[in-house]
Amino acid sequence: MAVLVQKYGGSSLTSAERIRAVADRIRRAREAGNDVVVVVSAMGDTTDELIRLAHLVSDDPDKRELDLLLSTGETVSATLMAMALEAMRCPVVSLTGAQLGIRTDRFYSRARIVDVQTDRVVGELKKGRCVIVTGFQGVTEEGDVTTLGRGGSDTSAVALGCALGSPKCEIYTDVDGVFTADPRVVPEARLLPSISYEEMLEMAQMGARVMHPRAVELGELYSLPIEVRSSFHERAGTLIHGGDDMEVRKRVRGIAHDTDVAKITVAGVPDRPGIAHAIFAPLAEAGVSVDVIVQTANLAGNAEISFTVARSDLAAALDLTQRVSNELGAQVESLATLAKVSIVGTGLQSAPGYAAKMFGTLSEHNINIDTITTSDIRITCIVEESAVPEAVQALHATFELDQE
Amino acid sequence: MAVLVQKYGGSSLTSAERIRAVADRIRRAREAGNDVVVVVSAMGDTTDELIRLAHLVSDDPDKRELDLLLSTGETVSATLMAMALEAMRCPVVSLTGAQLGIRTDRFYSRARIVDVQTDRVVGELKKGRCVIVTGFQGVTEEGDVTTLGRGGSDTSAVALGCALGSPKCEIYTDVDGVFTADPRVVPEARLLPSISYEEMLEMAQMGARVMHPRAVELGELYSLPIEVRSSFHERAGTLIHGGDDMEVRKRVRGIAHDTDVAKITVAGVPDRPGIAHAIFAPLAEAGVSVDVIVQTANLAGNAEISFTVARSDLAAALDLTQRVSNELGAQVESLATLAKVSIVGTGLQSAPGYAAKMFGTLSEHNINIDTITTSDIRITCIVEESAVPEAVQALHATFELDQE
Repeated sequence: MAVLVQKYGGSSLTSAERIRAVADRIRRAREAGNDVVVVVSAMGDTTDELIRLAHLVSDDPDKRELDLLLSTGETVSATLMAMALEAMRCPVVSLTGAQLGIRTDRFYSRARIVDVQTDRVVGELKKGRCVIVTGFQGVTEEGDVTTLGRGGSDTSAVALGCALGSPKCEIYTDVDGVFTADPRVVPEARLLPSISYEEMLEMAQMGARVMHPRAVELGELYSLPIEVRSSFHERAGTLIHGGDDMEVRKRVRGIAHDTDVAKITVAGVPDRPGIAHAIFAPLAEAGVSVDVIVQTANLAGNAEISFTVARSDLAAALDLTQRVSNELGAQVESLATLAKVSIVGTGLQSAPGYAAKMFGTLSEHNINIDTITTSDIRITCIVEESAVPEAVQALHATFELDQE
Repeated sequence: MAVLVQKYGGSSLTSAERIRAVADRIRRAREAGNDVVVVVSAMGDTTDELIRLAHLVSDDPDKRELDLLLSTGETVSATLMAMALEAMRCPVVSLTGAQLGIRTDRFYSRARIVDVQTDRVVGELKKGRCVIVTGFQGVTEEGDVTTLGRGGSDTSAVALGCALGSPKCEIYTDVDGVFTADPRVVPEARLLPSISYEEMLEMAQMGARVMHPRAVELGELYSLPIEVRSSFHERAGTLIHGGDDMEVRKRVRGIAHDTDVAKITVAGVPDRPGIAHAIFAPLAEAGVSVDVIVQTANLAGNAEISFTVARSDLAAALDLTQRVSNELGAQVESLATLAKVSIVGTGLQSAPGYAAKMFGTLSEHNINIDTITTSDIRITCIVEESAVPEAVQALHATFELDQE
């Protein structure tokens, strides 16, 4: 029998009432003839609460201990979900990451899945039970509990779907699916019935928070269709898959934006080999994720390097960059109020005109472009944060995304 | 090196501040040259909160799921304790019951420890680390999490002490130790510096709630000295041990009382074999614990059977007893407002005079005795609950327990 994997995020599990509502949905999926494996996140803001508690006893909580602490949040929601299903006379068992055997490496707080053991879960399914699995967590070979970092529960669900050979993984959340743009910014934004893995990856990386890129990548690797949909109603959501006509579609599928952008510029850098390494190695060591990097050199032999980071990393990145720059005799500037606006669609890069149309639209609206970056299926402009709503609305209209 | 096992109850772990205070105590024990293994309960009333949550999703939560749910409470306190110690630069690791290998049978919510695996904990101690262990929980051979029922964390600690060959197990709580009577009832009550396992068992079974009988039994079996003491100051508590002069001491050591007593009387029962079984078998099946049983027969061939249960079990017990009695044509009465008052001391039974002195004291105070039961080292009178303070105070004075 085909195994359906469903994942419910914390926003779908904010109360006992919501847990019972979700349990009823699971029961119906099972009665429709599916073997069902359900991955759950911690309820509501439990994880933030546990992190707060940890910081009350330690300024810098040990990562191994923090992972074990945080893992309790998913165990609570998994056992409550199992009890709710049991109360509906649906045979069920909950399994923690350790009990199921979601094996990871030892990088606490950002562990990677090495292997998903399927013996126990398949055994429970054969007994006719639903299996509720704690998302976000795994276990090392030595039996130590790890967490998978941001987007962890999505990744757990997709990994389970891949390991069990599921026909589909359903990701339930508090939004209806993937839209052509953020509906809070563009009221005309349209729900996309389907999107390719690559397009979804770019949308997610460029700011669409509905799903974590990591889980999308994994789904693409194993060709597992993923449906993002709401747990609050019955309407279909967005199917993320690898449809074969994707490559030739050549049109803009959506507009993503991300206002969590800060820029650091290092000016007056001697233009010689090894400079970029000197600047970026300390950032990598400190775990600061660098996004867009632009380097320019002038005739006088001086270079200027600009790069963007998340705003929460700005202080740390600035400090590290300042130290290197002092040694190099360079000047450092920063700007915290930037944003990324991207158009995403398969084949954009190879089709002329999209970039020109994007720049033209922004220009018509007197929106200044700070930096431009592109990939095969995306064009991104860095602009002032304050210009984001107008930019996104204008681009949505230009590319006629309100129309099917 | 000798391994000191300490256990801290929920009342010692009510806040981040209390966790840091306890961590400091653990650090000092370690710096005094001990290998330290610490067993922790869930913080404050976490367990009750989790039970409440479970009952919001199910009227009758599945026991396996409930055990896994409740186990998260101890995991939270163990990891927080480890973080607090780490912040004090004390090398430390937390281990859950499953990680350590506290193997139990499969009786969820009241599992019994089958075996304590010591490889992991000894390995961590050899690395120079303190080990923080989640109390109250174990794991089956199949990897399912169980809880040990009432007094579970005390039992975890004593079992670890036994398995590790510890010279002593320290049980930290919010009282100073074991008193000659409940200090809230008898202001003159004196802290006992030591008490035998048997005496402690009787005190605990008869209502002194400071320690669970089950853990005391285990300590006696392995001759592990147990010290009950306060986590709120540095003064010594009560050492529970098997001192060799205990048997000949023959004096009253303490007065225990328990106001959680209800009595059911079945009158007009035909006096023939099998009646007691007919009454008590359904109670045992329903998990109702029956305490004192008294049966009397009259010349007319009718018997009367009385027995006591905890008040929380009265409704269920009454219902079951009524059904049997209807079949037998017997009458059922019940009384919920009773209490047990006991004098406890090694050799009481074999030394004449103690019983007479106890009954005389109660008589002088016009306290009516409903039922009397005795063991080798205890005499218990069941009295009206309202008479308890006067009875306990009078007996405390009669047996001169305020004097060393």
